[in-house]
Amino acid sequence: MSGINDSVRIVNLGLEGFYSELKEQNVPVVQVDWRPPAGGDRELIDILCRLETPEVEAANAETIRRMKASRPLWIDVETAVKAIPGMQPNHILHSGPDIDFYDMCDPQQRAVEAAAIFEGWVSDRAGLEAKLKSGDIVLSNNYSYGSIGAMCGVISPSMPVIVTENAELGHNRSWSTFNEGKGNVIWMGTYDRGTIERLRWMRDVFGPAMKEAIRARGEGFDIFKTISQGVLMGDEVHARSAACTLLWLRDLLPLLLKGGCDKKTVNDIAQFIGGNNHSFLSLTLTACKVAADASHGVENSTIVTAMSRNGVDFALRVGGLDEWFISPTAPMDEAIYYSGYGPEDAAGDIGDSAIVETMGLGGMIIGAAPSISSFVGGSMSRSREAMAVMQSICASNNPKFAPGAVDFTPAPLGIDLRKVLRLGITPIVDTGVLHKASGVGQIGTGIARAPREVFVKALRGWGRRLGA
Amino acid sequence: MSGINDSVRIVNLGLEGFYSELKEQNVPVVQVDWRPPAGGDRELIDILCRLETPEVEAANAETIRRMKASRPLWIDVETAVKAIPGMQPNHILHSGPDIDFYDMCDPQQRAVEAAAIFEGWVSDRAGLEAKLKSGDIVLSNNYSYGSIGAMCGVISPSMPVIVTENAELGHNRSWSTFNEGKGNVIWMGTYDRGTIERLRWMRDVFGPAMKEAIRARGEGFDIFKTISQGVLMGDEVHARSAACTLLWLRDLLPLLLKGGCDKKTVNDIAQFIGGNNHSFLSLTLTACKVAADASHGVENSTIVTAMSRNGVDFALRVGGLDEWFISPTAPMDEAIYYSGYGPEDAAGDIGDSAIVETMGLGGMIIGAAPSISSFVGGSMSRSREAMAVMQSICASNNPKFAPGAVDFTPAPLGIDLRKVLRLGITPIVDTGVLHKASGVGQIGTGIARAPREVFVKALRGWGRRLGA
Repeated sequence: MSGINDSVRIVNLGLEGFYSELKEQNVPVVQVDWRPPAGGDRELIDILCRLETPEVEAANAETIRRMKASRPLWIDVETAVKAIPGMQPNHILHSGPDIDFYDMCDPQQRAVEAAAIFEGWVSDRAGLEAKLKSGDIVLSNNYSYGSIGAMCGVISPSMPVIVTENAELGHNRSWSTFNEGKGNVIWMGTYDRGTIERLRWMRDVFGPAMKEAIRARGEGFDIFKTISQGVLMGDEVHARSAACTLLWLRDLLPLLLKGGCDKKTVNDIAQFIGGNNHSFLSLTLTACKVAADASHGVENSTIVTAMSRNGVDFALRVGGLDEWFISPTAPMDEAIYYSGYGPEDAAGDIGDSAIVETMGLGGMIIGAAPSISSFVGGSMSRSREAMAVMQSICASNNPKFAPGAVDFTPAPLGIDLRKVLRLGITPIVDTGVLHKASGVGQIGTGIARAPREVFVKALRGWGRRLGA
Repeated sequence: MSGINDSVRIVNLGLEGFYSELKEQNVPVVQVDWRPPAGGDRELIDILCRLETPEVEAANAETIRRMKASRPLWIDVETAVKAIPGMQPNHILHSGPDIDFYDMCDPQQRAVEAAAIFEGWVSDRAGLEAKLKSGDIVLSNNYSYGSIGAMCGVISPSMPVIVTENAELGHNRSWSTFNEGKGNVIWMGTYDRGTIERLRWMRDVFGPAMKEAIRARGEGFDIFKTISQGVLMGDEVHARSAACTLLWLRDLLPLLLKGGCDKKTVNDIAQFIGGNNHSFLSLTLTACKVAADASHGVENSTIVTAMSRNGVDFALRVGGLDEWFISPTAPMDEAIYYSGYGPEDAAGDIGDSAIVETMGLGGMIIGAAPSISSFVGGSMSRSREAMAVMQSICASNNPKFAPGAVDFTPAPLGIDLRKVLRLGITPIVDTGVLHKASGVGQIGTGIARAPREVFVKALRGWGRRLGA
């Protein structure tokens, strides 16, 4: 594992003052590489220079303003096909960019298979393949519909989804399934009979109870408010959501206890949520998604507004451009593996959940979660350093999310495409690692670095927009 | 506020090698004061030198072994007079050493008054004074009975108490009331009609429900296990128990939901516990008390096994001596005051809760709680430094309690009377501050430094034991 430190290099792009600006910000620059730009980079440097304008600065400031002004509220629970505009009754949605079933990584294929079985459409892989071929089952990706999913990210029509709305800005919405908990789970690309039964319980018992609970609350549940507390209690809210989950459970209890469920059901639900430190993650994803979506679409903005992976491809969206840029996803070589596994067993980086880093959380605030400091070198000073490095590629920071363990350093916010390419530093994404073939599910955890290539593609996109 | 740093001085006690030992441990020594010992100190230095023996080292090691081996379990809830051996039906117990009612600080007097009203013995202060005079009501202190109380620490006979037992060592027990929550509360020395009603609800509804819950659990609730998690989630478990409270609530829920309470009562209890970040503190106190009691009584041990204050006096107990040493308690000049209050309004340091620091928690692991780093200077580096200073007066450390925010530095454990006096450094105690007269209750929070004088008395106690 190379650690975050290794990637801090200054490449001479002819941009005066940038190096001293970094020095002022106390960014730990470990190597200054003043080599003249290679032939092929000339075009990129030209585009970068043309993006150094007051218009881009203003657009980026507006993007940041929207990100900070967003106030995502969990307001409802609904069946996926009813909630998600455009989703059809034969759709299975998945994380990352569009991909043919046969090109998917093994865990995502398994997740699709489990969803089709859960829906009662098929009983095995052969049945699934037949119905995919005939068009009776259609795959599509979450980001085309505004929905979002962790890891394999599969949503099928009758699954209950969290409905989150941006209360302060745009009133746009996003949707995610609830986290399935532990054991064999389709979000990790593995299932058995119990998995399908759990999905049915979530549809028939859990979902309706959660719907009653959140509707009884009236005002909705302020997701960022809970995250603000969670980052003071050891969560960076991507790899670790232990505190947020407990805070959420505490808030849910009176709603569940005052509702129509009997005590046993309340207990089943409390155990399901409280027994899984990732429970809150689904709420975080929807919150970051509605904030990022509301911040997208500012003309001239070079701020990243989404990152999404399917284990094979990595997709990137930038505020001022209305297209998704796609390149091969990152290999999981910086992860920490469970005993008996290694990088050779790993599927590629996967999940829509990099929306968390897009909104300045997760890998951007690794110092919030001392228990996962091993991802970036194993000490708080390394975590602090990693945050400083991430700050160097961001346009702003967000004091609303300020981890106490790093002296309340505000979360780096707004990944600027220009800074990523000037510095050659790509965002850290906290993530789990899935087995590439065995169906055993998760085999590790750690960080992925978003691939530079996709940022280069986005910059070339800017080049086309700017014209010759 | 002077901060922890100021007190780090080396006083030349003729003990070779001690200074270099501190340097090796990276203790931030800011001033080396090699002045020759003043005349009056000669006797103390002689005693200190006579305590530099293999017997004392072995005794201290055994004390530490017992502290680490203790496994306090919350096992029951019982009415105080039934649970606490020796407590009489007309007793009111209080924190700190024995004290006459008229010598008590104002908040502790008010707490006693409220308890007497709650018991139905009196209706006002005049009635209380008459019954104290006639002997119909008798005051005694907690430590004489093995019970323990935060701040004013009042326990009256019909209050329900937590029963905690040391499962691994001695099977000794301790008892504390449950935390009363927010608003006007007798632990903070203030009450109104609602306070008395709450105490009745705790006796009639809450206590029996908690008794049923913990009895249903069978194996008891492992308090130190939860604290191990809490110190990774922003709690130092004295001034802040937010995470431990949530973890406890999560654990209680299935017990409450499977028990005989209706949903409304479960909800009332869940709100009562979950709505107060100090809820867990009472469990912590009983746990530390049974561990410290089981570690007391090792012949030749110079390790502190209890610290206890009543707002007027400070009491100290040392492992190898069977007496309590008492001196005036600390003034609250290092606290942070609520708006409109200052040190001139403060009662002295109060509560049996310094048992928390005795067991290596609270002020000893201030770095576990970044949100209260302001107590020692306002940054994680100061918190880390404070822990190093506390380590310098301790005999060992406890990896079971290892705050992530300071790179899992293990908790300094076992305050050694000898080191306290060699270095002139007294333990940090996290605490709340009570108004000295107004009945407004808490007016601040911060740290107290245990008074050097009481350690000097304990050393003179050793002198008497060692003989001429």
